[in-house]
Amino acid sequence: MRIPGLSDPHVHMREPGATHKEDWASGTAAALAGGFTRVLAMPNTDPPVVDAATLNIAKKFAANGARCDYGLYLGAGPNNPSLAARLADQAVGLKLYLDQTYGPLRLEEISLWNAHMQAWPATRPLVVHAEGRTMAAAILVAALADRPLHIAHVSTREEILLVRAAKQRGFKVTCEVTPQHLFLTAADLPGSRGEVRPRLASQADVDALWENLDVIDCFATDHAPHTAAEKAAENPPPGFPGLETALPLLLNSVHTGQLTLEDLVQRMDQNVRRIFNLPAQPETWVEVDLEHRYTLTAREMHSKAGWMPFEGWAVFGAVRQVVLRGKTVFMDGQVLAQPGSGQQIA
Amino acid sequence: MRIPGLSDPHVHMREPGATHKEDWASGTAAALAGGFTRVLAMPNTDPPVVDAATLNIAKKFAANGARCDYGLYLGAGPNNPSLAARLADQAVGLKLYLDQTYGPLRLEEISLWNAHMQAWPATRPLVVHAEGRTMAAAILVAALADRPLHIAHVSTREEILLVRAAKQRGFKVTCEVTPQHLFLTAADLPGSRGEVRPRLASQADVDALWENLDVIDCFATDHAPHTAAEKAAENPPPGFPGLETALPLLLNSVHTGQLTLEDLVQRMDQNVRRIFNLPAQPETWVEVDLEHRYTLTAREMHSKAGWMPFEGWAVFGAVRQVVLRGKTVFMDGQVLAQPGSGQQIA
Repeated sequence: MRIPGLSDPHVHMREPGATHKEDWASGTAAALAGGFTRVLAMPNTDPPVVDAATLNIAKKFAANGARCDYGLYLGAGPNNPSLAARLADQAVGLKLYLDQTYGPLRLEEISLWNAHMQAWPATRPLVVHAEGRTMAAAILVAALADRPLHIAHVSTREEILLVRAAKQRGFKVTCEVTPQHLFLTAADLPGSRGEVRPRLASQADVDALWENLDVIDCFATDHAPHTAAEKAAENPPPGFPGLETALPLLLNSVHTGQLTLEDLVQRMDQNVRRIFNLPAQPETWVEVDLEHRYTLTAREMHSKAGWMPFEGWAVFGAVRQVVLRGKTVFMDGQVLAQPGSGQQIA
Repeated sequence: MRIPGLSDPHVHMREPGATHKEDWASGTAAALAGGFTRVLAMPNTDPPVVDAATLNIAKKFAANGARCDYGLYLGAGPNNPSLAARLADQAVGLKLYLDQTYGPLRLEEISLWNAHMQAWPATRPLVVHAEGRTMAAAILVAALADRPLHIAHVSTREEILLVRAAKQRGFKVTCEVTPQHLFLTAADLPGSRGEVRPRLASQADVDALWENLDVIDCFATDHAPHTAAEKAAENPPPGFPGLETALPLLLNSVHTGQLTLEDLVQRMDQNVRRIFNLPAQPETWVEVDLEHRYTLTAREMHSKAGWMPFEGWAVFGAVRQVVLRGKTVFMDGQVLAQPGSGQQIA
């Protein structure tokens, strides 16, 4: 069965700065193997993408390495509201880290959130990492600035009900949910490997996400690779690889009837394009096999992470072939696209 | 000069539970000496006021001890949204503690805020202790529940600008500011005595409060007495006595031209009555002397706290006489009203 090429609004490519975890060539190979023909890359690299110089560095690495199409986020820092706004047409959105996670970007003060939201053009997405009461605060501050807000990785019952209520009251809010928060609880992955932000939650939280599927605009991987050794160390960095497991897991939910294929395509293609104003990708599609049952394993991954939180899970739903702009870029387990063949959106 | 009897929307009487700090007789003596003929008492006593039984205890102590008129808040706890709502007509408002402060009441989860806000009648005030991003979150959640919100003790530049922006966008928000946040910075009171919630802030914060006077609906003392010994101990409890210094300090600001007497009366009488739907107090007034210069000192206080953060401050502005419902209840430094002569508003 053929579905459109998918767009992932939330990935971490780790280049520049931590290419032992991932680089553009390996990360976009993982994307294609997972049915994604387009990824939007987060700015918390080293250096973080916060100005013209660092954006140019990111663009160069992406242009050299990417095997699929991509967009780049700018990061909101304490000193760059007007600087970031002037670069908006070269970026797919502005990412605001309002709660603690991996990397150096973090905005403590509401006045800084407001400065960024006011300065950033209303026509380009604002994306926040904002959990719990910080999420509620971000929704208010965006409304005061009269800007639409996209909320990354909603993970709890409280949060999805908040998004529902905000949408019902007419606040301009959209949101994404990750496969790890749809399929795992904290009990499934105790110990250091389970470290991820937002944290894995409870079964009640997982159930609430599924029960409020109509409120979820996008499925995003938040592909955040760290090596198995890093995840086994003390104070492991938070994050999971996700590009190669998201579509199989969600196709399996189609198989079990938890989701329709239309639900899936809306949240991994149409809604992502709408929210992020992405151009259509002509002659771009993914051939999936809904009947093939197999076992997810890190041994077959293209990501440098080398491990996955879903190791050994049996799923129905495989990616057979991926065609991007008329060319077969993935087929029968092999990534055929070369580094540098991907194009930037902006 | 004669001004109306003042209403303080935010006091802690400490009875029941901690009558060595304050009780109704001493706290309302302090109120009258400070020109307040009415106080609204917070529910974080021991036991806290959260249900019919504890409300009855509070009512009994207040009825026996109060020398001025008073209202009682109910406290929002994890288990009493519908219970509190059923008692609403016996209370002046519902207090929600969303950030950490003195006492056992604290609501962590947004779903609980929402449960309380939805259950509580829209005609009675909801008052929150909510600082910084929690304040922004509370404004959103109240808007989602379609309830007006009164924000206690706004203390920072960020917060007052947030309240301004929210009012401008039509959110139903009112706020109060305390004398300590208008007159003190953290540098003025280092060490354990300076512990208060919200914390004393910076000069820039103090300046911002004054510059946004038009956004401040009420001056509230947040009279929160602890003894000098308690304040000198390790882990001192947060809070200052304030009933006997608020009016002199603010009259001094009238003297210096920072404030008009009309600004003061609006924020200590008219706006408090409007926001909290308080009945008029007939034949009730305060004779103040704007020309008398003297020194604030704890030695002349009626509060049991026995110390004050403004010790030794020279001010213009004294309370000469207080008349409550036709009777002189304070004159020339002497409280004349008897315990039990105050009436409950509800």
